[in-house]
Amino acid sequence: MEKLTLIKVGGKIVEEPASLQQLLTDFAKIEGHKVLVHGGGRSATAMAARLGIESKMVNGRRITDEETLKVVTMVYGGLVNKQIVAGLQALGVNALGLTGADLNYMRSEKRPVKDVDYGFVGDVKEVNAPILADLIAKDVVPVLAPLTHDKSGNLLNTNADTIAGEAAKALAAYFDITLMYCFEKKGVLKDENDDDSVIAELTPALFESYVQSGVIQGGMIPKLENAFEALQAGVKKVVITRADLIDKEGGTIIINL
Amino acid sequence: MEKLTLIKVGGKIVEEPASLQQLLTDFAKIEGHKVLVHGGGRSATAMAARLGIESKMVNGRRITDEETLKVVTMVYGGLVNKQIVAGLQALGVNALGLTGADLNYMRSEKRPVKDVDYGFVGDVKEVNAPILADLIAKDVVPVLAPLTHDKSGNLLNTNADTIAGEAAKALAAYFDITLMYCFEKKGVLKDENDDDSVIAELTPALFESYVQSGVIQGGMIPKLENAFEALQAGVKKVVITRADLIDKEGGTIIINL
Repeated sequence: MEKLTLIKVGGKIVEEPASLQQLLTDFAKIEGHKVLVHGGGRSATAMAARLGIESKMVNGRRITDEETLKVVTMVYGGLVNKQIVAGLQALGVNALGLTGADLNYMRSEKRPVKDVDYGFVGDVKEVNAPILADLIAKDVVPVLAPLTHDKSGNLLNTNADTIAGEAAKALAAYFDITLMYCFEKKGVLKDENDDDSVIAELTPALFESYVQSGVIQGGMIPKLENAFEALQAGVKKVVITRADLIDKEGGTIIINL
Repeated sequence: MEKLTLIKVGGKIVEEPASLQQLLTDFAKIEGHKVLVHGGGRSATAMAARLGIESKMVNGRRITDEETLKVVTMVYGGLVNKQIVAGLQALGVNALGLTGADLNYMRSEKRPVKDVDYGFVGDVKEVNAPILADLIAKDVVPVLAPLTHDKSGNLLNTNADTIAGEAAKALAAYFDITLMYCFEKKGVLKDENDDDSVIAELTPALFESYVQSGVIQGGMIPKLENAFEALQAGVKKVVITRADLIDKEGGTIIINL
């Protein structure tokens, strides 16, 4: 199988012109097939504020009411996505910006209301892997915005980590996939105050022991659970690293031993 | 050659939920290959106003400064485009939203400053017809936003009529094209006060005589000149009609006799 590198970057990187340009330059250098998944939460929050719309967050997730859905559709699907696409095209990368509605590549369902009503947030139900795989095989580089649709005419807000994980799992039948989650640290740290205490390799057994000892906690736990799930679904390698290190060795490699 | 219907609709139609839904329903019924080109100027003006950005127009064209470029990128490329794409997918149409940057399908150059500095407005220089034709042949329905790029990382604002005309001319080598420009009247009128005075057919000779007699004037003149240019470039048929009549006979048919 041919190799595919699928990289997820958060809002902070793509929203500052200098760090975005560095990311695009590094991304363009990656050889072989690739996919970029981006966030944009900070820009969405800033735009909502300019429009007088309050951003409500619960457990770090955005409550997406009707007005907020319009904002994220504009910011994620328009502003952030198209600036990345234009920037990659300038570097000779044949980028194509997509929401889940485009080519119906990712269908979701509005999250059922339980303790929290997240509003227009979509849980992924179906990925049209053949249509994505066909584009990638033709050297198209999909740039995936954190938006899905319900195939009934509604766009839905979906977390970029989830988009990356679901796309990677669905494409695992077609490519030898490395999934890279970029965040602000060099990898998963043994000591959160020491940026160089990166855990080089994490197996499920090591993960368990680090969770029990409290070394790994908070939002990193679901991120790593997703990583192990991706590996179980056939993704070859998951790496947690910093955005400026995507074309270098390093970060935390998650392995399924 | 297979048939392709390329329809351009203005902002007013796509910005009101009821007329948008009617348009999408009518558009979905059109048999064979199709492309939809949309505007969005009214939404852009409204969004700019909410953000405290003044919309400056000269000769009916928007002056696109840096802040305005962000607004049109959000509104045309995000909000309007993705709502259309999601609406068409709900009707079983395999829509794919595109700006000129996506797949580098339409490259432009920033308009040189002469009497007026239009700002970040792009004049179309190159259409990547094979990549569009390939998608269309696979029953993908491109939904084209009025945005292009300069292949140097900059998105540019480009009039939707121009996008439609340039796409039609470039695709004429691949398909038997009908290009429909929708506006608020049933067609080109002999008497602007009589909505039923539609001119059924316009040849270059008839056009000349109507211009000389003052029957055809103002913004309709460049629209029709574009239509004749499209026919000369190989487009089979150009129709000027009202958006709610796209799946019916009628309107003004422009022919190159």
